[in-house]
Amino acid sequence: MKAIIPFKKENAKSRLGDFLTEKEREELAIRMLKDVLGAVSGSKIEEVEVLSTCSKDEITEELKSDTELKSTLKLTVREDARELNEVLNDVITKEKEPVLIIMADIPLATSQSINEIIEHEEEVVIAPGRNGGTNALLLRRPSAFFVSYYGISCSKHIETAERRNLSYAVYDSFFISTDIDEVEDLVELLIHGKGFSRDYLRRIGVVLQMDKNSKIRAMIDRS
Amino acid sequence: MKAIIPFKKENAKSRLGDFLTEKEREELAIRMLKDVLGAVSGSKIEEVEVLSTCSKDEITEELKSDTELKSTLKLTVREDARELNEVLNDVITKEKEPVLIIMADIPLATSQSINEIIEHEEEVVIAPGRNGGTNALLLRRPSAFFVSYYGISCSKHIETAERRNLSYAVYDSFFISTDIDEVEDLVELLIHGKGFSRDYLRRIGVVLQMDKNSKIRAMIDRS
Repeated sequence: MKAIIPFKKENAKSRLGDFLTEKEREELAIRMLKDVLGAVSGSKIEEVEVLSTCSKDEITEELKSDTELKSTLKLTVREDARELNEVLNDVITKEKEPVLIIMADIPLATSQSINEIIEHEEEVVIAPGRNGGTNALLLRRPSAFFVSYYGISCSKHIETAERRNLSYAVYDSFFISTDIDEVEDLVELLIHGKGFSRDYLRRIGVVLQMDKNSKIRAMIDRS
Repeated sequence: MKAIIPFKKENAKSRLGDFLTEKEREELAIRMLKDVLGAVSGSKIEEVEVLSTCSKDEITEELKSDTELKSTLKLTVREDARELNEVLNDVITKEKEPVLIIMADIPLATSQSINEIIEHEEEVVIAPGRNGGTNALLLRRPSAFFVSYYGISCSKHIETAERRNLSYAVYDSFFISTDIDEVEDLVELLIHGKGFSRDYLRRIGVVLQMDKNSKIRAMIDRS
């Protein structure tokens, strides 16, 4: 099966803008993509297409350095500057084989969870993200579907499956649900992460601290 | 198998204090407990003990009204005002049979996820909550374990299992991870909830709105 990973590097993760510099956000974004690719590589997925809004050569170069992917994984990078829904709907209209659309900012995703998603028999499998998002979406007949990211996309995707008479399942995973958008999401990455992006956060001095209400927070030590 | 659900009604959910009145927070807390009990009742769990910091009669009365539990479920309420770790460690020291400790504020928990947790063969199964918590904890030999809630309890519970040479697994569930503590958690309950607590939020006028950054937020309409 093929996976499609949409990726945006320039001005990545703008909601972390008060916490990390632009360069750090871009570095984090590419490392999260590497973590997702690592999870995909360890799963039964055979082919990955990274749909990038920035230069193909740049991403290909970044991914070469220390990313260890299984030798049988076919990885391509495609440059496409169009808006997410537009490009994805264009891609799936032409796609005859099943695809898994998986986000690039879910570095806690595991090979096991990816396998569990693709082992479902339903025509559509929706793995929700926090705040109404859809962080992984399996489409057995991509051309029969229509994606609507942004807003409460998980509900929209369920409605689309219902309206088009496609069988569907909701896949329940904390690690897949955890997209890294805001400072508080970094807490999850530091606690549960094992990959490149967790290592990067540690290296630039992001640490966990407990505030006076016993809530765990991510802080940065720039000393 | 037996489940233990710690429950606190008085001054429940204080971090929702700027959003809901004390009475509303208490009402929400009891409805979330009912949703968790419903999920437990639909699972293979045969016996539930609610460990309540407030009056046993009060909780028993609340739970009677319109909660539909399977007739074979043995439900008891025990009043114990002690601090969470103290009371749980006291209980598990004396417990000879496996127990599932499950939080009362995870109304999205499903019977399926509870069954999946208890079907694990490991001696300890840890289902993480957001922000380092442990929202469900299966202990096959309770007296061999020691709980440490608060702080990054999921890591502490993993360390305890390792130190005591108990096999363990981390159970990955978005719905179990979603404890309702803060206003932004209400978004998840409104999007994914199907039970008493979701209905209650709707009834008191909590609705979803998209802010100018396309982020979904819970608002209350007191008109």
